[in-house]
Amino acid sequence: MENIELQVDERIDEIANSGVKIIQSRAVFSFSIDAILLARFPRLPKKKQAQIIDMCAGNGAVGLFASSKTSAKIIELELQERLADMAQRSILLNGLGEQMSVINDNLNQALNHLHTSSTDLIFCNPPYFKVDSSDSHLNESQHYTLARHELTTNLDEIFSISKKLLKSNGHIAMVHRPERFLEIVDKMRANNLQPKWIQFVYPKADQPANILLIDAIKDGKAGGEIFLPPLIVHNDDGTYTDEINRIYYGKNE
Amino acid sequence: MENIELQVDERIDEIANSGVKIIQSRAVFSFSIDAILLARFPRLPKKKQAQIIDMCAGNGAVGLFASSKTSAKIIELELQERLADMAQRSILLNGLGEQMSVINDNLNQALNHLHTSSTDLIFCNPPYFKVDSSDSHLNESQHYTLARHELTTNLDEIFSISKKLLKSNGHIAMVHRPERFLEIVDKMRANNLQPKWIQFVYPKADQPANILLIDAIKDGKAGGEIFLPPLIVHNDDGTYTDEINRIYYGKNE
Repeated sequence: MENIELQVDERIDEIANSGVKIIQSRAVFSFSIDAILLARFPRLPKKKQAQIIDMCAGNGAVGLFASSKTSAKIIELELQERLADMAQRSILLNGLGEQMSVINDNLNQALNHLHTSSTDLIFCNPPYFKVDSSDSHLNESQHYTLARHELTTNLDEIFSISKKLLKSNGHIAMVHRPERFLEIVDKMRANNLQPKWIQFVYPKADQPANILLIDAIKDGKAGGEIFLPPLIVHNDDGTYTDEINRIYYGKNE
Repeated sequence: MENIELQVDERIDEIANSGVKIIQSRAVFSFSIDAILLARFPRLPKKKQAQIIDMCAGNGAVGLFASSKTSAKIIELELQERLADMAQRSILLNGLGEQMSVINDNLNQALNHLHTSSTDLIFCNPPYFKVDSSDSHLNESQHYTLARHELTTNLDEIFSISKKLLKSNGHIAMVHRPERFLEIVDKMRANNLQPKWIQFVYPKADQPANILLIDAIKDGKAGGEIFLPPLIVHNDDGTYTDEINRIYYGKNE
Protein backbone atom coordinates (compact mmCIF):
# COMPACT_ATOMS: atom_id res chain seq x y z
CA MET A 1 0.00 0.00 0.00
CA GLU A 2 1.40 3.36 -1.01
CA ASN A 3 1.91 6.41 1.13
CA ILE A 4 -0.93 8.77 0.23
CA GLU A 5 -0.95 12.48 1.04
CA LEU A 6 -4.09 13.92 2.59
CA GLN A 7 -5.16 17.54 2.21
CA VAL A 8 -5.86 19.41 5.45
CA ASP A 9 -9.67 18.97 5.38
CA GLU A 10 -9.52 15.28 4.48
CA ARG A 11 -9.99 12.13 6.53
CA ILE A 12 -9.94 8.42 5.78
CA ASP A 13 -13.09 6.35 6.41
CA GLU A 14 -13.87 2.69 5.86
CA ILE A 15 -16.80 1.99 3.53
CA ALA A 16 -19.52 -0.12 5.17
CA ASN A 17 -17.09 -2.44 7.00
CA SER A 18 -15.89 -3.68 3.60
CA GLY A 19 -12.22 -3.25 4.41
CA VAL A 20 -12.08 -0.62 1.65
CA LYS A 21 -10.87 2.84 2.72
CA ILE A 22 -12.00 6.12 1.21
CA ILE A 23 -10.71 9.67 1.41
CA GLN A 24 -13.48 12.04 2.41
CA SER A 25 -13.86 15.73 3.22
CA ARG A 26 -16.79 17.35 4.90
CA ALA A 27 -15.95 20.61 3.11
CA VAL A 28 -15.94 19.00 -0.32
CA PHE A 29 -17.81 15.71 -0.47
CA SER A 30 -18.66 12.69 1.65
CA PHE A 31 -20.57 9.72 0.32
CA SER A 32 -24.12 9.17 1.55
CA ILE A 33 -26.20 6.10 2.28
CA ASP A 34 -27.48 6.37 -1.30
CA ALA A 35 -24.05 5.31 -2.60
CA ILE A 36 -23.95 2.24 -0.36
CA LEU A 37 -27.49 1.24 -1.31
CA LEU A 38 -26.62 1.59 -4.99
CA ALA A 39 -23.37 -0.38 -4.74
CA ARG A 40 -25.16 -3.46 -3.30
CA PHE A 41 -28.19 -3.19 -5.59
CA PRO A 42 -27.37 -4.77 -8.98
CA ARG A 43 -25.94 -8.19 -9.71
CA LEU A 44 -22.25 -7.57 -10.36
CA PRO A 45 -20.32 -8.99 -13.31
CA LYS A 46 -17.55 -10.95 -11.60
CA LYS A 47 -14.97 -11.75 -14.28
CA LYS A 48 -11.71 -9.85 -14.60
CA GLN A 49 -12.51 -9.15 -18.26
CA ALA A 50 -15.79 -7.40 -17.40
CA GLN A 51 -15.96 -3.59 -17.25
CA ILE A 52 -17.90 -1.50 -14.75
CA ILE A 53 -18.22 2.29 -14.91
CA ASP A 54 -19.06 4.35 -11.86
CA MET A 55 -20.60 7.42 -13.52
CA CYS A 56 -20.93 10.68 -11.56
CA ALA A 57 -18.51 8.94 -9.20
CA GLY A 58 -17.86 11.76 -6.73
CA ASN A 59 -15.07 10.58 -4.44
CA GLY A 60 -15.54 7.05 -5.79
CA ALA A 61 -17.54 5.36 -3.03
CA VAL A 62 -19.76 3.18 -5.24
CA GLY A 63 -16.90 1.78 -7.32
CA LEU A 64 -14.61 1.38 -4.30
CA PHE A 65 -17.29 -0.52 -2.36
CA ALA A 66 -18.06 -2.71 -5.40
CA SER A 67 -14.36 -3.56 -5.77
CA SER A 68 -14.61 -5.71 -2.66
CA LYS A 69 -17.16 -7.96 -4.41
CA THR A 70 -15.87 -8.43 -7.96
CA SER A 71 -12.68 -8.82 -9.97
CA ALA A 72 -14.11 -6.77 -12.86
CA LYS A 73 -12.30 -3.64 -14.03
CA ILE A 74 -13.89 -0.56 -12.45
CA ILE A 75 -13.62 2.92 -13.95
CA GLU A 76 -14.51 5.99 -11.90
CA LEU A 77 -15.83 8.77 -14.16
CA GLU A 78 -15.96 12.16 -12.42
CA LEU A 79 -16.01 15.72 -13.75
CA GLN A 80 -14.77 17.58 -10.68
CA GLU A 81 -10.96 17.57 -10.51
CA ARG A 82 -10.78 17.63 -6.72
CA LEU A 83 -13.17 14.69 -6.34
CA ALA A 84 -11.48 12.71 -9.13
CA ASP A 85 -8.18 13.27 -7.33
CA MET A 86 -9.64 12.03 -4.06
CA ALA A 87 -10.95 8.92 -5.84
CA GLN A 88 -7.53 8.35 -7.45
CA ARG A 89 -5.76 8.58 -4.10
CA SER A 90 -8.32 6.25 -2.50
CA ILE A 91 -7.59 3.69 -5.24
CA LEU A 92 -3.87 3.89 -4.46
CA LEU A 93 -4.53 3.86 -0.71
CA ASN A 94 -6.27 0.50 -1.14
CA GLY A 95 -3.70 -0.89 -3.55
CA LEU A 96 -6.38 -1.21 -6.22
CA GLY A 97 -4.40 0.39 -9.06
CA GLU A 98 -4.60 -2.82 -11.13
CA GLN A 99 -8.38 -3.12 -10.93
CA MET A 100 -9.52 0.50 -10.80
CA SER A 101 -8.85 3.77 -12.62
CA VAL A 102 -10.23 7.29 -12.78
CA ILE A 103 -11.30 9.38 -15.76
CA ASN A 104 -11.51 13.06 -14.86
CA ASP A 105 -13.80 14.42 -17.54
CA ASN A 106 -17.40 15.31 -18.34
CA LEU A 107 -19.40 12.14 -18.87
CA ASN A 108 -20.42 13.41 -22.30
CA GLN A 109 -16.76 12.93 -23.25
CA ALA A 110 -16.73 9.30 -22.07
CA LEU A 111 -16.46 7.94 -25.63
CA ASN A 112 -13.16 9.78 -26.06
CA HIS A 113 -11.80 7.50 -23.31
CA LEU A 114 -13.83 4.29 -23.61
CA HIS A 115 -15.05 2.06 -26.43
CA THR A 116 -18.65 1.80 -27.62
CA SER A 117 -20.38 -1.37 -26.36
CA SER A 118 -17.51 -2.05 -23.98
CA THR A 119 -19.31 -2.03 -20.64
CA ASP A 120 -21.18 -4.66 -18.63
CA LEU A 121 -22.51 -2.44 -15.84
CA ILE A 122 -22.87 1.28 -15.25
CA PHE A 123 -23.49 2.61 -11.75
CA CYS A 124 -24.96 6.09 -11.62
CA ASN A 125 -25.62 8.26 -8.57
CA PRO A 126 -26.40 11.47 -10.47
CA PRO A 127 -27.43 14.95 -9.36
CA TYR A 128 -31.04 14.63 -8.18
CA PHE A 129 -32.39 18.13 -8.64
CA LYS A 130 -33.39 20.03 -11.75
CA VAL A 131 -31.69 23.37 -12.09
CA ASP A 132 -34.98 25.20 -11.65
CA SER A 133 -35.81 23.11 -8.58
CA SER A 134 -36.96 24.82 -5.43
CA ASP A 135 -34.77 22.34 -3.56
CA SER A 136 -31.73 24.36 -4.56
CA HIS A 137 -29.06 25.01 -1.94
CA LEU A 138 -27.40 28.16 -3.19
CA ASN A 139 -25.33 28.62 -0.08
CA GLU A 140 -23.56 25.30 -0.22
CA SER A 141 -20.09 24.75 -1.68
CA GLN A 142 -19.68 24.45 -5.42
CA HIS A 143 -18.67 20.80 -5.01
CA TYR A 144 -21.98 19.96 -3.37
CA THR A 145 -23.96 22.13 -5.78
CA LEU A 146 -22.55 20.26 -8.79
CA ALA A 147 -23.15 16.91 -7.12
CA ARG A 148 -26.79 17.72 -6.34
CA HIS A 149 -28.02 19.80 -9.28
CA GLU A 150 -28.26 19.02 -12.97
CA LEU A 151 -25.89 21.83 -13.90
CA THR A 152 -23.32 19.86 -15.89
CA THR A 153 -25.39 16.86 -16.93
CA ASN A 154 -28.97 15.55 -16.95
CA LEU A 155 -30.92 12.31 -17.38
CA ASP A 156 -31.15 12.54 -21.17
CA GLU A 157 -27.39 12.83 -21.48
CA ILE A 158 -26.67 10.13 -18.92
CA PHE A 159 -28.89 7.57 -20.65
CA SER A 160 -27.79 8.55 -24.15
CA ILE A 161 -24.10 8.04 -23.24
CA SER A 162 -24.89 4.89 -21.24
CA LYS A 163 -26.67 3.33 -24.20
CA LYS A 164 -23.51 3.79 -26.26
CA LEU A 165 -21.13 2.51 -23.58
CA LEU A 166 -23.12 -0.59 -22.65
CA LYS A 167 -22.97 -3.95 -24.37
CA SER A 168 -26.32 -5.36 -25.45
CA ASN A 169 -27.87 -6.85 -22.28
CA GLY A 170 -25.52 -4.71 -20.17
CA HIS A 171 -27.09 -2.95 -17.19
CA ILE A 172 -27.38 0.52 -15.77
CA ALA A 173 -28.15 0.72 -12.04
CA MET A 174 -29.20 4.14 -10.79
CA VAL A 175 -30.14 5.70 -7.47
CA HIS A 176 -32.52 8.66 -7.66
CA ARG A 177 -35.63 10.24 -6.17
CA PRO A 178 -39.02 8.48 -6.42
CA GLU A 179 -40.77 11.68 -7.48
CA ARG A 180 -38.89 11.51 -10.79
CA PHE A 181 -39.61 7.83 -11.39
CA LEU A 182 -41.84 8.21 -14.45
CA GLU A 183 -39.45 10.69 -16.07
CA ILE A 184 -36.59 8.25 -15.46
CA VAL A 185 -38.37 5.22 -16.95
CA ASP A 186 -39.46 7.28 -19.97
CA LYS A 187 -35.94 8.54 -20.65
CA MET A 188 -34.39 5.13 -20.08
CA ARG A 189 -36.76 3.52 -22.56
CA ALA A 190 -36.15 6.31 -25.10
CA ASN A 191 -32.56 5.00 -25.06
CA ASN A 192 -33.36 1.26 -25.30
CA LEU A 193 -32.72 0.82 -21.58
CA GLN A 194 -35.56 -1.34 -20.26
CA PRO A 195 -36.29 -0.96 -16.51
CA LYS A 196 -36.37 -4.42 -15.00
CA TRP A 197 -35.59 -4.37 -11.23
CA ILE A 198 -36.90 -1.59 -9.05
CA GLN A 199 -36.56 -1.14 -5.30
CA PHE A 200 -37.98 1.61 -3.13
CA VAL A 201 -36.34 2.76 0.09
CA TYR A 202 -38.57 4.16 2.86
CA PRO A 203 -37.27 6.28 5.77
CA LYS A 204 -39.72 4.45 8.07
CA ALA A 205 -42.28 1.69 7.52
CA ASP A 206 -45.17 4.17 7.54
CA GLN A 207 -43.63 6.87 5.35
CA PRO A 208 -43.55 7.29 1.56
CA ALA A 209 -40.40 6.21 -0.30
CA ASN A 210 -37.58 8.76 -0.50
CA ILE A 211 -35.00 6.78 -2.49
CA LEU A 212 -35.45 4.90 -5.76
CA LEU A 213 -33.12 2.15 -7.00
CA ILE A 214 -33.61 1.12 -10.62
CA ASP A 215 -31.76 -1.36 -12.83
CA ALA A 216 -32.37 -1.34 -16.59
CA ILE A 217 -31.16 -3.71 -19.32
CA LYS A 218 -29.92 -2.40 -22.65
CA ASP A 219 -32.11 -3.91 -25.40
CA GLY A 220 -34.16 -5.71 -22.73
CA LYS A 221 -37.68 -6.93 -23.44
CA ALA A 222 -40.59 -4.78 -22.19
CA GLY A 223 -42.85 -6.05 -19.41
CA GLY A 224 -42.32 -8.23 -16.39
CA GLU A 225 -40.70 -5.53 -14.25
CA ILE A 226 -39.96 -6.68 -10.71
CA PHE A 227 -40.47 -4.55 -7.59
CA LEU A 228 -38.03 -5.93 -5.06
CA PRO A 229 -38.78 -6.13 -1.33
CA PRO A 230 -39.04 -2.71 0.34
CA LEU A 231 -36.00 -1.38 2.19
CA ILE A 232 -36.94 0.36 5.43
CA VAL A 233 -34.13 2.52 6.85
CA HIS A 234 -35.27 3.32 10.41
CA ASN A 235 -37.28 1.55 13.07
CA ASP A 236 -40.05 3.53 14.78
CA ASP A 237 -37.59 4.53 17.51
CA GLY A 238 -35.17 6.05 14.98
CA THR A 239 -32.53 3.30 15.13
CA TYR A 240 -31.42 1.56 11.93
CA THR A 241 -33.34 -1.56 10.93
CA ASP A 242 -31.53 -4.91 10.91
CA GLU A 243 -31.40 -4.85 7.14
CA ILE A 244 -29.73 -1.43 7.00
CA ASN A 245 -27.27 -2.46 9.72
CA ARG A 246 -26.43 -5.46 7.56
CA ILE A 247 -25.92 -3.34 4.44
CA TYR A 248 -24.22 -0.40 6.10
CA TYR A 249 -22.09 -2.00 8.80
CA GLY A 250 -21.90 -5.60 7.62
CA LYS A 251 -23.59 -6.66 10.86
CA ASN A 252 -25.45 -9.97 11.10
CA GLU A 253 -23.63 -11.38 8.09
CA MET B 1 -84.10 -4.29 4.97
CA GLU B 2 -85.73 -6.33 2.23
CA ASN B 3 -86.11 -10.09 2.01
CA ILE B 4 -83.53 -11.22 -0.54
CA GLU B 5 -83.57 -14.60 -2.25
CA LEU B 6 -80.33 -16.56 -2.40
CA GLN B 7 -79.52 -19.09 -5.09
CA VAL B 8 -78.47 -22.55 -3.88
CA ASP B 9 -74.71 -21.99 -4.18
CA GLU B 10 -74.79 -18.55 -2.54
CA ARG B 11 -73.89 -17.37 0.95
CA ILE B 12 -73.85 -14.02 2.71
CA ASP B 13 -70.53 -12.65 4.05
CA GLU B 14 -69.64 -9.44 5.82
CA ILE B 15 -67.02 -7.29 4.07
CA ALA B 16 -64.00 -6.56 6.29
CA ASN B 17 -66.04 -6.01 9.48
CA SER B 18 -67.63 -2.97 7.83
CA GLY B 19 -71.16 -3.99 8.66
CA VAL B 20 -71.83 -4.30 4.92
CA LYS B 21 -73.05 -7.70 3.75
CA ILE B 22 -72.30 -9.27 0.37
CA ILE B 23 -73.74 -12.21 -1.53
CA GLN B 24 -70.96 -14.56 -2.63
CA SER B 25 -70.67 -17.89 -4.38
CA ARG B 26 -67.62 -20.08 -4.50
CA ALA B 27 -68.87 -21.54 -7.81
CA VAL B 28 -69.26 -18.13 -9.43
CA PHE B 29 -67.23 -15.40 -7.73
CA SER B 30 -65.97 -14.35 -4.33
CA PHE B 31 -64.11 -11.10 -3.74
CA SER B 32 -60.40 -11.28 -2.96
CA ILE B 33 -58.09 -9.26 -0.73
CA ASP B 34 -57.33 -7.15 -3.81
CA ALA B 35 -60.85 -5.69 -3.69
CA ILE B 36 -60.48 -4.70 -0.03
CA LEU B 37 -57.04 -3.16 -0.61
CA LEU B 38 -58.44 -1.17 -3.54
CA ALA B 39 -61.53 0.06 -1.66
CA ARG B 40 -59.42 1.64 1.14
CA PHE B 41 -56.74 2.99 -1.19
CA PRO B 42 -57.92 6.32 -2.70
CA ARG B 43 -59.25 9.37 -0.91
CA LEU B 44 -63.04 9.12 -1.31
CA PRO B 45 -65.26 11.97 -2.42
CA LYS B 46 -67.67 12.31 0.50
CA LYS B 47 -70.54 14.48 -0.68
CA LYS B 48 -73.90 13.05 -1.67
CA GLN B 49 -73.66 14.85 -5.03
CA ALA B 50 -70.38 13.11 -5.92
CA GLN B 51 -70.36 10.07 -8.22
CA ILE B 52 -68.22 6.95 -7.87
CA ILE B 53 -68.12 4.13 -10.42
CA ASP B 54 -66.97 0.64 -9.50
CA MET B 55 -65.84 -0.62 -12.90
CA CYS B 56 -65.40 -4.37 -13.49
CA ALA B 57 -67.39 -4.62 -10.27
CA GLY B 58 -67.85 -8.39 -10.06
CA ASN B 59 -70.23 -9.04 -7.18
CA GLY B 60 -69.78 -5.44 -6.07
CA ALA B 61 -67.34 -5.75 -3.17
CA VAL B 62 -65.34 -2.56 -3.79
CA GLY B 63 -68.37 -0.30 -4.11
CA LEU B 64 -70.21 -2.00 -1.24
CA PHE B 65 -67.22 -1.61 1.08
CA ALA B 66 -66.74 2.03 0.02
CA SER B 67 -70.42 2.75 0.77
CA SER B 68 -69.64 2.49 4.48
CA LYS B 69 -67.24 5.45 4.20
CA THR B 70 -68.96 7.97 1.95
CA SER B 71 -72.37 9.40 1.08
CA ALA B 72 -71.46 9.69 -2.61
CA LYS B 73 -73.55 7.90 -5.21
CA ILE B 74 -71.93 4.58 -6.16
CA ILE B 75 -72.57 2.82 -9.46
CA GLU B 76 -71.56 -0.80 -9.94
CA LEU B 77 -70.70 -1.49 -13.59
CA GLU B 78 -70.52 -5.21 -14.41
CA LEU B 79 -70.83 -7.13 -17.67
CA GLN B 80 -71.74 -10.57 -16.33
CA GLU B 81 -75.48 -10.85 -15.67
CA ARG B 82 -75.15 -13.29 -12.78
CA LEU B 83 -72.58 -11.11 -10.97
CA ALA B 84 -74.53 -7.91 -11.62
CA ASP B 85 -77.59 -9.63 -10.16
CA MET B 86 -75.64 -10.65 -7.06
CA ALA B 87 -74.42 -7.05 -6.66
CA GLN B 88 -78.00 -5.75 -7.07
CA ARG B 89 -79.33 -8.13 -4.41
CA SER B 90 -76.45 -7.20 -2.06
CA ILE B 91 -77.41 -3.52 -2.45
CA LEU B 92 -81.00 -4.33 -1.49
CA LEU B 93 -79.84 -6.64 1.32
CA ASN B 94 -77.99 -3.69 2.87
CA GLY B 95 -80.80 -1.22 2.23
CA LEU B 96 -78.47 0.83 0.02
CA GLY B 97 -80.89 1.30 -2.87
CA GLU B 98 -80.83 5.10 -2.49
CA GLN B 99 -77.04 5.37 -2.65
CA MET B 100 -76.09 2.54 -4.99
CA SER B 101 -77.16 1.11 -8.33
CA VAL B 102 -75.99 -1.47 -10.86
CA ILE B 103 -75.45 -1.17 -14.60
CA ASN B 104 -75.30 -4.58 -16.24
CA ASP B 105 -73.45 -3.85 -19.48
CA ASN B 106 -70.06 -3.87 -21.13
CA LEU B 107 -67.98 -0.98 -19.80
CA ASN B 108 -67.48 0.22 -23.36
CA GLN B 109 -71.22 1.02 -23.29
CA ALA B 110 -70.92 3.11 -20.12
CA LEU B 111 -71.58 6.38 -21.95
CA ASN B 112 -75.01 5.05 -22.98
CA HIS B 113 -75.88 5.04 -19.27
CA LEU B 114 -73.75 7.81 -17.76
CA HIS B 115 -72.79 11.36 -18.69
CA THR B 116 -69.39 12.48 -19.92
CA SER B 117 -67.34 14.25 -17.20
CA SER B 118 -69.83 13.15 -14.55
CA THR B 119 -67.60 11.12 -12.26
CA ASP B 120 -65.34 11.99 -9.32
CA LEU B 121 -63.76 8.59 -8.75
CA ILE B 122 -63.51 5.34 -10.68
CA PHE B 123 -62.49 2.14 -8.93
CA CYS B 124 -61.20 -0.58 -11.20
CA ASN B 125 -60.24 -4.15 -10.32
CA PRO B 126 -59.89 -5.41 -13.89
CA PRO B 127 -58.89 -8.78 -15.38
CA TYR B 128 -55.13 -9.11 -14.76
CA PHE B 129 -54.05 -11.48 -17.49
CA LYS B 130 -53.57 -10.95 -21.19
CA VAL B 131 -55.47 -13.41 -23.33
CA ASP B 132 -52.23 -14.97 -24.59
CA SER B 133 -50.90 -15.22 -21.04
CA SER B 134 -49.40 -18.49 -19.87
CA ASP B 135 -51.20 -17.84 -16.57
CA SER B 136 -54.46 -18.91 -18.19
CA HIS B 137 -56.78 -21.18 -16.24
CA LEU B 138 -58.76 -22.92 -18.92
CA ASN B 139 -60.43 -25.34 -16.55
CA GLU B 140 -62.02 -22.73 -14.33
CA SER B 141 -65.61 -21.55 -14.64
CA GLN B 142 -66.51 -19.00 -17.27
CA HIS B 143 -67.26 -16.45 -14.52
CA TYR B 144 -63.72 -16.68 -13.19
CA THR B 145 -62.19 -16.75 -16.68
CA LEU B 146 -63.91 -13.49 -17.62
CA ALA B 147 -62.91 -11.90 -14.31
CA ARG B 148 -59.25 -12.87 -14.72
CA HIS B 149 -58.53 -12.58 -18.44
CA GLU B 150 -58.75 -9.64 -20.80
CA LEU B 151 -61.36 -11.34 -22.98
CA THR B 152 -64.07 -8.68 -22.91
CA THR B 153 -62.01 -5.59 -22.09
CA ASN B 154 -58.41 -4.40 -21.77
CA LEU B 155 -56.38 -1.52 -20.34
CA ASP B 156 -56.67 0.69 -23.42
CA GLU B 157 -60.46 0.48 -23.34
CA ILE B 158 -60.69 0.94 -19.56
CA PHE B 159 -58.60 4.12 -19.59
CA SER B 160 -60.21 5.50 -22.74
CA ILE B 161 -63.71 5.16 -21.23
CA SER B 162 -62.51 6.38 -17.82
CA LYS B 163 -61.07 9.53 -19.35
CA LYS B 164 -64.50 10.32 -20.79
CA LEU B 165 -66.43 9.53 -17.61
CA LEU B 166 -64.17 11.45 -15.22
CA LYS B 167 -64.39 15.12 -14.40
CA SER B 168 -61.16 17.07 -14.81
CA ASN B 169 -59.13 16.30 -11.66
CA GLY B 170 -61.26 13.22 -11.07
CA HIS B 171 -59.39 10.04 -10.10
CA ILE B 172 -59.09 6.46 -11.22
CA ALA B 173 -57.84 4.01 -8.60
CA MET B 174 -56.80 0.61 -9.92
CA VAL B 175 -55.49 -2.64 -8.49
CA HIS B 176 -53.31 -4.70 -10.81
CA ARG B 177 -50.10 -6.71 -11.08
CA PRO B 178 -46.70 -5.03 -10.63
CA GLU B 179 -45.26 -6.77 -13.69
CA ARG B 180 -47.56 -4.66 -15.86
CA PHE B 181 -46.75 -1.38 -14.11
CA LEU B 182 -44.96 0.34 -17.00
CA GLU B 183 -47.68 -0.68 -19.46
CA ILE B 184 -50.31 0.71 -17.09
CA VAL B 185 -48.60 4.07 -16.57
CA ASP B 186 -48.03 4.42 -20.33
CA LYS B 187 -51.67 3.69 -21.16
CA MET B 188 -52.96 5.92 -18.37
CA ARG B 189 -50.88 8.85 -19.59
CA ALA B 190 -51.96 8.23 -23.21
CA ASN B 191 -55.46 9.06 -21.86
CA ASN B 192 -54.50 12.15 -19.81
CA LEU B 193 -54.62 10.13 -16.60
CA GLN B 194 -51.52 11.11 -14.61
CA PRO B 195 -50.30 8.51 -12.07
CA LYS B 196 -49.85 10.24 -8.75
CA TRP B 197 -50.11 7.81 -5.79
CA ILE B 198 -48.66 4.35 -6.04
CA GLN B 199 -48.51 1.64 -3.39
CA PHE B 200 -46.95 -1.80 -3.65
CA VAL B 201 -48.18 -4.79 -1.69
CA TYR B 202 -45.68 -7.50 -0.73
CA PRO B 203 -46.67 -11.05 0.35
CA LYS B 204 -43.85 -10.95 2.92
CA ALA B 205 -41.25 -8.34 3.88
CA ASP B 206 -38.51 -10.14 1.96
CA GLN B 207 -40.45 -10.94 -1.22
CA PRO B 208 -41.09 -8.88 -4.38
CA ALA B 209 -44.39 -7.02 -4.69
CA ASN B 210 -47.33 -9.02 -6.07
CA ILE B 211 -50.06 -6.37 -6.00
CA LEU B 212 -49.97 -2.83 -7.39
CA LEU B 213 -52.30 -0.03 -6.30
CA ILE B 214 -52.25 3.08 -8.49
CA ASP B 215 -54.27 6.30 -8.39
CA ALA B 216 -54.16 8.67 -11.37
CA ILE B 217 -55.62 12.16 -11.81
CA LYS B 218 -57.37 13.18 -15.02
CA ASP B 219 -55.49 16.17 -16.49
CA GLY B 220 -53.01 15.99 -13.58
CA LYS B 221 -49.56 17.55 -13.84
CA ALA B 222 -46.63 15.24 -14.63
CA GLY B 223 -43.95 14.58 -12.02
CA GLY B 224 -43.96 14.34 -8.24
CA GLU B 225 -45.41 10.84 -8.08
CA ILE B 226 -45.61 9.48 -4.54
CA PHE B 227 -44.78 5.91 -3.55
CA LEU B 228 -46.80 5.28 -0.41
CA PRO B 229 -45.54 3.13 2.48
CA PRO B 230 -45.22 -0.56 1.59
CA LEU B 231 -48.03 -2.91 2.57
CA ILE B 232 -46.75 -6.25 3.84
CA VAL B 233 -49.45 -8.95 3.97
CA HIS B 234 -47.88 -11.74 6.03
CA ASN B 235 -45.44 -11.95 8.90
CA ASP B 236 -42.57 -14.42 8.60
CA ASP B 237 -44.68 -17.04 10.39
CA GLY B 238 -47.50 -16.75 7.82
CA THR B 239 -49.95 -14.83 10.03
CA TYR B 240 -51.40 -11.54 8.81
CA THR B 241 -49.48 -8.38 9.75
CA ASP B 242 -51.11 -5.85 12.09
CA GLU B 243 -51.77 -3.54 9.17
CA ILE B 244 -53.60 -6.19 7.15
CA ASN B 245 -55.61 -7.22 10.21
CA ARG B 246 -56.59 -3.57 10.55
CA ILE B 247 -57.62 -3.30 6.91
CA TYR B 248 -59.21 -6.70 6.56
CA TYR B 249 -60.87 -7.27 9.91
CA GLY B 250 -61.06 -3.75 11.29
CA LYS B 251 -58.88 -4.87 14.22
CA ASN B 252 -56.85 -2.36 16.24
CA GLU B 253 -59.01 0.50 15.09
